[in-house]
Amino acid sequence: MKNFVFYNHTKILFGKDQIAAITGEIPADSRILLIYGGGSIKENGIYDQVIDAISDFEYYEFGGIEPNPSYEKCMEALDVIDENEIDFLLAVGGGSVIDATKFIAAAAFYEGEDPWDILAHSEEVLEALPIGTVLTLPATGSEMNGSAVISRLEYKEKLAFSSPELLPLFSVLDPQVVESLPKRQIENGIVDTFVHVMEQYLTYSVDAKVQDRMAEGIMLTLIEEGPKVLADPSNYNAAANYMWSATMALNSLIGSGVPQDWSTHSIGHEITALHGVDHARTLAIVLPGTMKVMKESKKDKITQYAQRIWGITGNSDDEIVDAAIKKTIDFFESMGIKTRLRDYYIPVTIADEIADRMEQRGDVNIGENKLVGIDEIRKILEGRY
Amino acid sequence: MKNFVFYNHTKILFGKDQIAAITGEIPADSRILLIYGGGSIKENGIYDQVIDAISDFEYYEFGGIEPNPSYEKCMEALDVIDENEIDFLLAVGGGSVIDATKFIAAAAFYEGEDPWDILAHSEEVLEALPIGTVLTLPATGSEMNGSAVISRLEYKEKLAFSSPELLPLFSVLDPQVVESLPKRQIENGIVDTFVHVMEQYLTYSVDAKVQDRMAEGIMLTLIEEGPKVLADPSNYNAAANYMWSATMALNSLIGSGVPQDWSTHSIGHEITALHGVDHARTLAIVLPGTMKVMKESKKDKITQYAQRIWGITGNSDDEIVDAAIKKTIDFFESMGIKTRLRDYYIPVTIADEIADRMEQRGDVNIGENKLVGIDEIRKILEGRY
Repeated sequence: MKNFVFYNHTKILFGKDQIAAITGEIPADSRILLIYGGGSIKENGIYDQVIDAISDFEYYEFGGIEPNPSYEKCMEALDVIDENEIDFLLAVGGGSVIDATKFIAAAAFYEGEDPWDILAHSEEVLEALPIGTVLTLPATGSEMNGSAVISRLEYKEKLAFSSPELLPLFSVLDPQVVESLPKRQIENGIVDTFVHVMEQYLTYSVDAKVQDRMAEGIMLTLIEEGPKVLADPSNYNAAANYMWSATMALNSLIGSGVPQDWSTHSIGHEITALHGVDHARTLAIVLPGTMKVMKESKKDKITQYAQRIWGITGNSDDEIVDAAIKKTIDFFESMGIKTRLRDYYIPVTIADEIADRMEQRGDVNIGENKLVGIDEIRKILEGRY
Repeated sequence: MKNFVFYNHTKILFGKDQIAAITGEIPADSRILLIYGGGSIKENGIYDQVIDAISDFEYYEFGGIEPNPSYEKCMEALDVIDENEIDFLLAVGGGSVIDATKFIAAAAFYEGEDPWDILAHSEEVLEALPIGTVLTLPATGSEMNGSAVISRLEYKEKLAFSSPELLPLFSVLDPQVVESLPKRQIENGIVDTFVHVMEQYLTYSVDAKVQDRMAEGIMLTLIEEGPKVLADPSNYNAAANYMWSATMALNSLIGSGVPQDWSTHSIGHEITALHGVDHARTLAIVLPGTMKVMKESKKDKITQYAQRIWGITGNSDDEIVDAAIKKTIDFFESMGIKTRLRDYYIPVTIADEIADRMEQRGDVNIGENKLVGIDEIRKILEGRY
């Protein structure tokens, strides 16, 4: 096992009707900016519950955060913060709203020329506004980590950043929100969560058995509960298991003391930046190729995955690996997510474009062993494996 | 799944040679009281590493905490704290030292007549001195929770208390410490950890699938790694997996959103209080009886445990339950821990004594369903099931 530091102080308020409890979690006398997305929270009753809970505070609103939150939109919030002396950000939404809130929280204290440099040049976040969240879409895990992904529309760039300063103080996770979600978002959330686990699990083995078992536990839960949630989003326990899986998948726990891959995400972000495909769908396109192209360096873990998750045994490693990839694809497809570029009408020439962009940025070798280079990215996307 | 609040802000520094890092984790200008046990830390080099790390602080020492830490010993520390204006407690040791430190931290601010009332009358801990820990014996999980167990020698009482105020600020977990432990302490640590998981897992089902899988993952890890650690405590990865299992078993994670039993612990504490038997050994004595006597209310979970942990299937529920209990006993015995009262030369009449004591204290119905009453305790201890 590798050395690690685990530190996650986000307070989770999980379960039915927990929104009212945020009143006691927000620091007294805070001047709150309530940040949300396209307004679905005004239709499903969550907005009203939040307003009730913060009615004794001075609060302002900033809506309209997009599904892939943009730098441009986030920058508009800075004026509202300045004008109204905001000192607490309350994100009410899914990962996009929470990610945007993190960027706004960091940008509010950024002293350089352009806060985009936090992403483009990995400028360290030294201070940020405190954040609380009310999660309305289980998927990204953003409610219990310090990471965020922001797009800059003018550059067609989608980049990630991270800081312990951006861990939410608290997050409300009420599984009842799942009932009001569009089916497409649930499909995305389940597959996104599954791939988050895989990025931290399907690497080379460092004999970290608790982390492996926990990662496997989340995947087994998604495989069991995913179909139930899709069949009936009002099934509370299934929704709760899905929601807690999504949070546990990316709160540092299963990633502590182990190598991590994230090459599927890096490539997937490019597809979203260039073609606007939903994040989870890009992951479903890329992951099977990553498994196949990197099968030599991942062989031990793919074999463990095949056996523990899918009960696969076989006569040869190749046979086991192929069967495991097929099961993974079948699972994504059963969750309503297509797994090939052509399913999204994207030409395979995107491989060249992405390889060029990553080469220009200097991201030329990614993955847990830095073995995913330009050639591998082409193979992964072109299906030539 | 039940509603829950999960909040655990202890920062974990895990791995080789992490003790030096505490210098940066202790608040500047702290006046430290270094608390430890019988002095083994002076033989295995840990004391020297700690002293190096805190040499720039003003620090004092308080050694001699016993294996079952006593109220009487802890109270002696209060004078040292007062005299030297101590404002930070650094516990270097196993669960006993950390538990004692928690009681001292709470007692230092206690305003009532006798801090024992925190245990005897569940007086709330409103304020406590901040705590850091360097763990030298993986077992109790005390390094990442707010709970402690203290004995009062004059009353032969051993009682537990808990407060979020007592969560350590940080804990150093260096698996290299396992190498210098007496075999008996490793045996105890593995079985103690296993039973901590069982107390949170082997209840009635609330369909909390992530928690179940994580609990199972810890148990499977202990079953795989326990024999390796005992065979060779210098096996770093095996020690690391055992150490992380012990912490994860009792940091609220697997216990969030689920019912919890703890009747085995309640009964076990009485055996220790009356006969001085090691804590883990009392758990190994009590758990099989608890499983057997409570098998009706725990049936679904025992069946799941039997299948997922031991691969047991059978023709009838009774057959499966019996086989699961036998496997559990065999595991404890293979870890060098005997499971019957007579192995410790304790007469079965202890059952009456314990039942009387619990009746006097009003603890007459314990367990997740409050179904473990005086008759059940007698049956569990007398083996009449």
